[in-house]
Amino acid sequence: MTPNITAAKTALSHLDVEENPHAIRTASRDFFWYSPVLKARMDHLLADFVVRPRNEAEVIEILKVCYEHDVPVTTRGAGTGNYGQAMPMRGGCVMHLVYMNQVTSCEPGRVVVQPGCLLKDLDAHCIAHCGHELRMFSSTWATATVGGFVAGGSGGVGSVTWGQLRDLGNIIRLRVVTMEAEPRVLEFRGEELARVSHAYGTNGIITELELPLAPAYDWVHCFVATKDFAAAMDCAEGLANEDGVLLKIASVYEAPVAKSYFQRVSPHVAEDDALVGLMVAPQSMDALVTFLTRRPELSLIYRSDDTDWPRNPGLVFEYGWNHTTLRALKFDPSITYLQVRYAYPDHNALIEKMRATFPGEVLQHLEAIRVNGKVSFAGLSLVKFTTEERLDEIIRIHEDAGAQIFNPHRYTLEEGGRQHSDQRQLSFKKEADPKGLLNPGKMISFDTPDWDYAKIYDYPSMTPKEA
Amino acid sequence: MTPNITAAKTALSHLDVEENPHAIRTASRDFFWYSPVLKARMDHLLADFVVRPRNEAEVIEILKVCYEHDVPVTTRGAGTGNYGQAMPMRGGCVMHLVYMNQVTSCEPGRVVVQPGCLLKDLDAHCIAHCGHELRMFSSTWATATVGGFVAGGSGGVGSVTWGQLRDLGNIIRLRVVTMEAEPRVLEFRGEELARVSHAYGTNGIITELELPLAPAYDWVHCFVATKDFAAAMDCAEGLANEDGVLLKIASVYEAPVAKSYFQRVSPHVAEDDALVGLMVAPQSMDALVTFLTRRPELSLIYRSDDTDWPRNPGLVFEYGWNHTTLRALKFDPSITYLQVRYAYPDHNALIEKMRATFPGEVLQHLEAIRVNGKVSFAGLSLVKFTTEERLDEIIRIHEDAGAQIFNPHRYTLEEGGRQHSDQRQLSFKKEADPKGLLNPGKMISFDTPDWDYAKIYDYPSMTPKEA
Repeated sequence: MTPNITAAKTALSHLDVEENPHAIRTASRDFFWYSPVLKARMDHLLADFVVRPRNEAEVIEILKVCYEHDVPVTTRGAGTGNYGQAMPMRGGCVMHLVYMNQVTSCEPGRVVVQPGCLLKDLDAHCIAHCGHELRMFSSTWATATVGGFVAGGSGGVGSVTWGQLRDLGNIIRLRVVTMEAEPRVLEFRGEELARVSHAYGTNGIITELELPLAPAYDWVHCFVATKDFAAAMDCAEGLANEDGVLLKIASVYEAPVAKSYFQRVSPHVAEDDALVGLMVAPQSMDALVTFLTRRPELSLIYRSDDTDWPRNPGLVFEYGWNHTTLRALKFDPSITYLQVRYAYPDHNALIEKMRATFPGEVLQHLEAIRVNGKVSFAGLSLVKFTTEERLDEIIRIHEDAGAQIFNPHRYTLEEGGRQHSDQRQLSFKKEADPKGLLNPGKMISFDTPDWDYAKIYDYPSMTPKEA
Repeated sequence: MTPNITAAKTALSHLDVEENPHAIRTASRDFFWYSPVLKARMDHLLADFVVRPRNEAEVIEILKVCYEHDVPVTTRGAGTGNYGQAMPMRGGCVMHLVYMNQVTSCEPGRVVVQPGCLLKDLDAHCIAHCGHELRMFSSTWATATVGGFVAGGSGGVGSVTWGQLRDLGNIIRLRVVTMEAEPRVLEFRGEELARVSHAYGTNGIITELELPLAPAYDWVHCFVATKDFAAAMDCAEGLANEDGVLLKIASVYEAPVAKSYFQRVSPHVAEDDALVGLMVAPQSMDALVTFLTRRPELSLIYRSDDTDWPRNPGLVFEYGWNHTTLRALKFDPSITYLQVRYAYPDHNALIEKMRATFPGEVLQHLEAIRVNGKVSFAGLSLVKFTTEERLDEIIRIHEDAGAQIFNPHRYTLEEGGRQHSDQRQLSFKKEADPKGLLNPGKMISFDTPDWDYAKIYDYPSMTPKEA
């Protein structure tokens, strides 16, 4: 099955097809380079061409033409994802949804939107039109698209209140186009949503999303400092368990993350200060102050509604989730990260154990999240990278201790997730993408069903590095 | 200290003073009669006069005049509370806040309101002006006042999401007038709120409240039926633990409560059906249906947005909290109730144990609530009343098993609560009500500091029954 690139390009030439090599190179990359492991393996990947559909009809046309000519299609939004989820493993077509950015409708509690809309623009639209905003979003809010977030994300800012994207009620409806001789348009709700959410566009292309909204508040961005890491965890978790206090994020940073990597926070903290980043609804600020007054080991060093800091530190969520890693990388290119889940109710003991295990090598960065109604922590630990072997060992030590790892140094859905196939995604891929052309190389169970996960999966059809 | 009623009435005669005996009798009663124990003790209580202030200045004047003439002042809203909290134990003045019902300001997330505003009117105002509504309210929403709810309530409809009124952030500010020679006007926030919230007006009169609001949705009222009581508990608790599903209430009724006492539900359930009452945001309805589809033992028998029931059952919350007791009382005057707290994480086992202990005598009615971030149940058990001794025994058996009882068959703050004095309320009463004239008889620690709680407290200065 050799792709006929030329035929596909010719057939699509009336659309917005990008042929500039520099632009193709840019559109062939996402934020895979957060991982030194993926950087070594994916840096060379390149699409043959990029096409930017303007509407669903053009998406259908692109999928139909590429199906006919056996051309792989890797769909992308802004390309801010990690895990190499938008990298064209076999070249071919990158379908860029930048033009499909319209908000179709919004009302309090609900929005209908196209996938290419930036999270930031979507929020601005919803706040202006109905006083609501997204329940959750990635820390790349300013540059990422809503379609990319749902296709690749699992949660983020807002998960401290609303749980994960996969939880019931956090996605209402997805409209999806299949890649067949005659592409079909399907509407998924309820149980069916799991087929295509967090599937990296491997089994269908999302052309419309219906999402729940939450009330928009003039969130107060806060930093709390403490010499005591356990007190910092207790601050984030305790606040998240205050049912009357509205939070959008509660992040914990072990010392010296704030001093070393948070440039505008650095002058206000010491080397040994742990930091808590918070977004608190204005009507909950009295409650926050009361909560902190009960814990003299905590100091509210910054609140955006009342500050004398000469330099505005900006949005607190742009210190959290994977922006922490990004900030650290700017100061120390050898830094990478892990995604860890510390399950309730033993999360704090497990975190302390991991903290004690890797002094100077792993720095704790935690995000308070709700999982099945209970507050616990997701870790996006900062790791001083030495070798792939040591990274794998660090992961193994975490797993042996009972921490779940979502390995961001893998490019397949299975290895970045729970290390086993998702039958709902797999069976829908067999139906919706019979030729296996949608974002190839990302679903092991489709390509190599008997894979045993003993080592990193090496997609056999990956475009080889040029000599 | 003999009250000079005549002098006080004369001094207040330019205000709206009620002298009609029938109206005084009505204003001297609340919903104490839910309890046969309180009915036997409080039915005779009668104020000497009723006064209805129009504003805070008149409140100050009334308190100053009554202080001067040693006249007790019992403040009331609509008088829908239980626990006899608005009953004039020593007669004197009942101050009725019916005219102080203005909404001062509202914005998304926050309202400022006078205490006499009905919860229903407050919600209507907020929904119309800013698209928000109260986070929580009592099932007597249609007739109760916001001041009475905060002065006497602990939570209610909405507590499944927002926890209790006493939780940080669920009250922002209270403005309070003291009863001294020169009454003071104080503003309480943060830690100070605990002095006067849930204090029955024993140590200050609330003249203004600032409360947080939640977004208003077109809540879908639902009933779910099941033959399996454990499945009904799991339904309410499981939904409350779904972080992406927005609930306003999740009530559980053991069979045959629905068949026997819920007139408009009765034709749609069998004698052996347990019932779950739910209010679900419209954007969460798909999630509800998905949740129920996973549990075939549960049947969605009613949803207000799509129903063929010939008779509208009305608002689901008017079946819950203490409306359950009210509905049962209409069919069986021998019914009374208990307020029980089943603490996480052993709540379900404890409930099943209590359910097995009192067959035919105690019927389980549960409300899912959040306590310190965890979902568990409050019980408002329906009790077939025989004698006070048996009622006390039932309470003791609950307590011995580990269930906490908030005894609604007592009229003091301590006995209806945690059986010990609240030092914050007591010390503020000593300061704000030095003559002990505010709602006398309701704070044991003020009147009888060495009380040992071995038996029901009998306020020595209660107006005696006439022979």
